[in-house]
Amino acid sequence: MPLITFEGIDGCGKSTQILMLKEYFEKKGIKCSVFREPGGTKIGEEIRKILLDNADSEMDPKTEFLLFAASRAQLVSQEIKPRIRDEFVILDRYVDSSVAYQGFARGLGKKIVTFINEFATDLIYPDLTFYIEIDEKIFEERKKEKKDRIESEGIEFIKKVIEGYNQISNSSRFVKIDGRMEQDQLFRVIIEKIKDHFKV
Amino acid sequence: MPLITFEGIDGCGKSTQILMLKEYFEKKGIKCSVFREPGGTKIGEEIRKILLDNADSEMDPKTEFLLFAASRAQLVSQEIKPRIRDEFVILDRYVDSSVAYQGFARGLGKKIVTFINEFATDLIYPDLTFYIEIDEKIFEERKKEKKDRIESEGIEFIKKVIEGYNQISNSSRFVKIDGRMEQDQLFRVIIEKIKDHFKV
Repeated sequence: MPLITFEGIDGCGKSTQILMLKEYFEKKGIKCSVFREPGGTKIGEEIRKILLDNADSEMDPKTEFLLFAASRAQLVSQEIKPRIRDEFVILDRYVDSSVAYQGFARGLGKKIVTFINEFATDLIYPDLTFYIEIDEKIFEERKKEKKDRIESEGIEFIKKVIEGYNQISNSSRFVKIDGRMEQDQLFRVIIEKIKDHFKV
Repeated sequence: MPLITFEGIDGCGKSTQILMLKEYFEKKGIKCSVFREPGGTKIGEEIRKILLDNADSEMDPKTEFLLFAASRAQLVSQEIKPRIRDEFVILDRYVDSSVAYQGFARGLGKKIVTFINEFATDLIYPDLTFYIEIDEKIFEERKKEKKDRIESEGIEFIKKVIEGYNQISNSSRFVKIDGRMEQDQLFRVIIEKIKDHFKV
């Protein structure tokens, strides 16, 4: 199964690129499904509500991570595994988000987060991960008016998330892309890599 | 901190005993708090809704366990740790429930469930655990009309939960009690053990 994930801090342009990629596959007649994290299933969307609710400010970092892992386990068993043979699956965030956000920025550590991620996903890793890089200044410029609980964390938190992504994005499945590019230019880089990697 | 937990299958009489114990402590002027799992905090009660909702029949066993662990992590950080020095804390279910229900009955295994429990709780174990034993026949006799998602599992599932409890309840912190006794008789056994153990 080709599993493609998109990673990066909020405002990096992931969602737009995912929409464009989905359209590209559909035009080519290639079956493809898109899911977001947290969420992507009925149960996952219920978990998402708890995770992003600004009223849940007392949430412990371990609770936060275990909720992400629960949503992820459900997504893998209910949506990803059944598509394993004949579809492209595109994910808006996956295991690496937890390593960057909860492992590095919240301080739980890479090791335990990776271990529980692997339990939740039955070791299903992406074939290709696009990490769209922007720095904290661009994050500040692009940020939304109405922020959820995690987006409401300050700039120091975002710096730690970026530091986390930097530390994990050198493995071979990662493709780092400069998020300052225009959307069309960014998309061309992604498509070139997809063609090259999957021969589609 | 004296941490006392009550374990057993639904219908064993845990909740009644907990109410009686709370009253006993209060009459003696001993500070004491009671929490239930899943739940016990605002976030935990939101997680509880997802876990027990009959509409969530597609829930994967791993999702189920990670949700219990998330609720547990929140309870430990928000309610148990702050009371560590000067209160009795009584819990209606805790780590052992996950070992019996998710580890044994759902088949995830004792080892991984224990490992993630210890991550969620920062290794905070009960001082004393009352396991109120009833068999599946008494469970059938006492069971409620309106059952939640987990209570709706059949008798074979309950047998596996009992088997799980049997396998873990021989350690020294466990007190096994025959759940066929009358409530007052059962309570006398519990109080004797409490007096003996905590010198109160």
